[in-house]
Amino acid sequence: MNTVSQVLTNVQASVSEISDQSAELFQFHRGQDVVFMLMLVAFLMMFIRRYEWGVALATLLVFATVFPLYIFAQQVFFDAEMGVGLVIGAAFAAITLVIAIGVFLGHISTISYLIVGILFVPSYMIIEWFLFEALQGTLDAGGSILVHMFAAYWGWGVILGLRNKAVNDEPADTSVHSVSFVWLASMLLMVLWPSFVTALVEPEYIILGLSNTYLAMVGSILTTYVLLWALKRTIDPLVFTYAILAGGVAIGASVDLVTTWQAWLIGLVAGAVSTLSFVFLDEWLRAKTGVWDTMGVHNLHGVPGILGGLMPIAFGHAGGTQAIAVVGTIVIALVLGFIVGLILKVMPKPTKMLDDVEAFPAEEMRATDPA
Amino acid sequence: MNTVSQVLTNVQASVSEISDQSAELFQFHRGQDVVFMLMLVAFLMMFIRRYEWGVALATLLVFATVFPLYIFAQQVFFDAEMGVGLVIGAAFAAITLVIAIGVFLGHISTISYLIVGILFVPSYMIIEWFLFEALQGTLDAGGSILVHMFAAYWGWGVILGLRNKAVNDEPADTSVHSVSFVWLASMLLMVLWPSFVTALVEPEYIILGLSNTYLAMVGSILTTYVLLWALKRTIDPLVFTYAILAGGVAIGASVDLVTTWQAWLIGLVAGAVSTLSFVFLDEWLRAKTGVWDTMGVHNLHGVPGILGGLMPIAFGHAGGTQAIAVVGTIVIALVLGFIVGLILKVMPKPTKMLDDVEAFPAEEMRATDPA
Amino acid sequence: MNTVSQVLTNVQASVSEISDQSAELFQFHRGQDVVFMLMLVAFLMMFIRRYEWGVALATLLVFATVFPLYIFAQQVFFDAEMGVGLVIGAAFAAITLVIAIGVFLGHISTISYLIVGILFVPSYMIIEWFLFEALQGTLDAGGSILVHMFAAYWGWGVILGLRNKAVNDEPADTSVHSVSFVWLASMLLMVLWPSFVTALVEPEYIILGLSNTYLAMVGSILTTYVLLWALKRTIDPLVFTYAILAGGVAIGASVDLVTTWQAWLIGLVAGAVSTLSFVFLDEWLRAKTGVWDTMGVHNLHGVPGILGGLMPIAFGHAGGTQAIAVVGTIVIALVLGFIVGLILKVMPKPTKMLDDVEAFPAEEMRATDPA
Repeated sequence: MNTVSQVLTNVQASVSEISDQSAELFQFHRGQDVVFMLMLVAFLMMFIRRYEWGVALATLLVFATVFPLYIFAQQVFFDAEMGVGLVIGAAFAAITLVIAIGVFLGHISTISYLIVGILFVPSYMIIEWFLFEALQGTLDAGGSILVHMFAAYWGWGVILGLRNKAVNDEPADTSVHSVSFVWLASMLLMVLWPSFVTALVEPEYIILGLSNTYLAMVGSILTTYVLLWALKRTIDPLVFTYAILAGGVAIGASVDLVTTWQAWLIGLVAGAVSTLSFVFLDEWLRAKTGVWDTMGVHNLHGVPGILGGLMPIAFGHAGGTQAIAVVGTIVIALVLGFIVGLILKVMPKPTKMLDDVEAFPAEEMRATDPA
Repeated sequence: MNTVSQVLTNVQASVSEISDQSAELFQFHRGQDVVFMLMLVAFLMMFIRRYEWGVALATLLVFATVFPLYIFAQQVFFDAEMGVGLVIGAAFAAITLVIAIGVFLGHISTISYLIVGILFVPSYMIIEWFLFEALQGTLDAGGSILVHMFAAYWGWGVILGLRNKAVNDEPADTSVHSVSFVWLASMLLMVLWPSFVTALVEPEYIILGLSNTYLAMVGSILTTYVLLWALKRTIDPLVFTYAILAGGVAIGASVDLVTTWQAWLIGLVAGAVSTLSFVFLDEWLRAKTGVWDTMGVHNLHGVPGILGGLMPIAFGHAGGTQAIAVVGTIVIALVLGFIVGLILKVMPKPTKMLDDVEAFPAEEMRATDPA
Repeated sequence: MNTVSQVLTNVQASVSEISDQSAELFQFHRGQDVVFMLMLVAFLMMFIRRYEWGVALATLLVFATVFPLYIFAQQVFFDAEMGVGLVIGAAFAAITLVIAIGVFLGHISTISYLIVGILFVPSYMIIEWFLFEALQGTLDAGGSILVHMFAAYWGWGVILGLRNKAVNDEPADTSVHSVSFVWLASMLLMVLWPSFVTALVEPEYIILGLSNTYLAMVGSILTTYVLLWALKRTIDPLVFTYAILAGGVAIGASVDLVTTWQAWLIGLVAGAVSTLSFVFLDEWLRAKTGVWDTMGVHNLHGVPGILGGLMPIAFGHAGGTQAIAVVGTIVIALVLGFIVGLILKVMPKPTKMLDDVEAFPAEEMRATDPA
């Protein structure tokens, strides 16, 4: 019977190896989708008529800095091994900063995005340590806290440190073609969102994550539309395309915990909360703080991120630690961002704000654009 | 030997579990791709210069209604369990309606899309019952009948019930940028099409589905180009970008049955049939019925859908049942759609047809769009 | 014990079958991504204001010709069996020609792209034979040589044979909306690139390919930005969006051989080399040869392709054979392309160069495009 147990051992080892390899391979496309979403966030922010290429450039410079630096730091300080998990971790760090720069986009010169990228990585590693080492047991499989909340409040920290009054007038001019790109980006972000929230979960929760995420997102579409129509009798496309993503933001922390209809409910509430933030909170915050959140990051990632972070408590899966995680993230993010904002204050200002001519030969390329 | 057989049983159970889990996980991205295609259909229909955001909004409202309602109905009436199959089934239902609204897009007010979504789900569940319960043995792995034919004739049923004369003048004005989005949508739909037709097939037919689908699609490109050039000496981009997808529509019912070169042949014929429908049938139908199929749904989904539905008969895989499925679908779709059209007739009409100002602050956002 | 060994054999057979099937299924999406990239290359080339639809049409005609013809030739001459490998092989052939036509885009009439597609397949099969049959041991897992170098020099062969002086004036006019599509295409090509370079590698190298490719690409972003800024104090978006892809081109031949930071280094160098080619080499080549590479294919695919082809030598994985592969590919590509160029010379010229009116009712559709 010795041989039999050996057969058993060999076969089981080989089965479990296949299982591991196939789980790892299966993460490949989810990892790719996270990078896809990183790029799409640029197009979501590309609605200002004279400021399109600059948004894409800033996104790519952030990606080019954060992605390798995060991997390098993980290897040097934590002996991390290269693998799909580290690639996804680095992509998460990079997309978090791409979201965060939306708060102060146009407030800094192009080259400063390289500096921002370098300064962001330590901040992000501190919050990772706080959430998953200092606090054991924070629930945040899909990044409501780590990615969305941290992005929003770190970005707000930066703009409060920077206090660049000159751009505090909202540029109202859009173009039809740029708004079409915003629709495309928003709709494709919705498509890819399940890959983001399940990128790092165990295989047995992936399908649950897929259904919960889509249900949260369709919930947000519904309340965003109904609320905007009820309040304004017109749909502002730059509120609608943003607020419908709030379900994805809010489902993150509980994507592997809640049931189908709980997920839908989270999406319904998140869409409503985000819409109300765009319509009412935005202007109040601007009046109070004297600064302007260029891309409405707080309304999409901040408020729905907090909501999402608290959902594991609401549905009975977590207690005080989760609350500390949420509150602590706001404080830590604001402080770390504020310090980075102070550093950026000494860098040269953009020669022309929220305009592609700052970095590109845009004037002459536009001159040939009558149609 | 008792132990040996136990080992065998355990190991086989574990192997088959891995196999099941990996097949299920592998459906994840195909399911996502179906939702991706749902979004792309919006951009395929975004060619009217003053009516872009409205198309995207209608698509999202349909998704937000049909997707959760179909899941809810399946759970309540058929005790369906949540899983990747149910997500894909709901996405199929939603994309079918997104195609169908193309027939009467602009004929109803924005809020009515929510009503359409609710009314569509029972219709769709009836056709599912008819094709796969009442008729045992309908061959339609990739949705030629269930999705494309049903979408086209249900949509035609609606417009015949609705008979909204006011919009029967085709808006001819396009913009270069919106037509570029149509090219993008058509080309990416082609890329993703294999995921759609194989979303619900057994693992052993997935690769066959991949090769057969691409061969059908490249076949359609060829005949569409040659026929348009032969007939018109110019390529209408709004016929070309549509008719090249006919191969994907037509391969659906036999994607798991035919050989490589049979698939190519189906694509060649489908492209030709769709092109001829756009060039000749479209106007004849409009003259006969007095209504206008806004997005040419009948030419891309109706006629090539019928062709595809009959292919299993042509290649000897099916007989009379398949013919009954095709004919029955036309009748049932027209009747169910007609009833919904009558209901929609009593809803308020759009204030301005085929124009974004109906729902959006488009006039003022466009005013800032000189370049 | 006979039974035990039988059990072992059965179970192992079933395990290895699952492993094979899951590896094959897993190639499905990588294959799809290659076709996705083929389509995106069209949008990368869509920056000339009056020549957008023609680029998409040329891409689709090339796909419609090369894809089935390559499969047909492989089946007839090499008894190849249909499967995911053959689909990917055919997609590789098609994308190679889509890149190559960038050299002479606008120089030939639309219908000639069908002829080009037919003439390209034998050329491509010759280079495949040269690299992987005649020379045993060429290292090129991700296509630096087979796809990028061959595309560039075959395309240059064609234009040297064709010598169509009339279009040698660079059309300088772009439109904001078309340049936005170029940004989108470049950024999404970056996202999908790991699928391309790992499409045909063994499962155990796929994750390595993912990390190496992204590191190479972010390296290129960095040096492209810094060099352009240092040299010009402005970022030409049509150089930037191209040169940042050079890391992907150059990593191809050694994607499964190098370490993380070697990959980053390759990307840094490739971005610099490509940028310098755009800024200095381009004009020098035009002056020397009297022809103009419409889409700068040589600067993105030619020079970084050579660099990439030589990397296995630089990092000690290959020797003389690899050098012969690189030099031989340049010679064979130029000769085969030149012959095709001579054949194309006798075909009718485009009635209007680099303008959609050559094939489309563009004038009248544009007339309705004030916004």
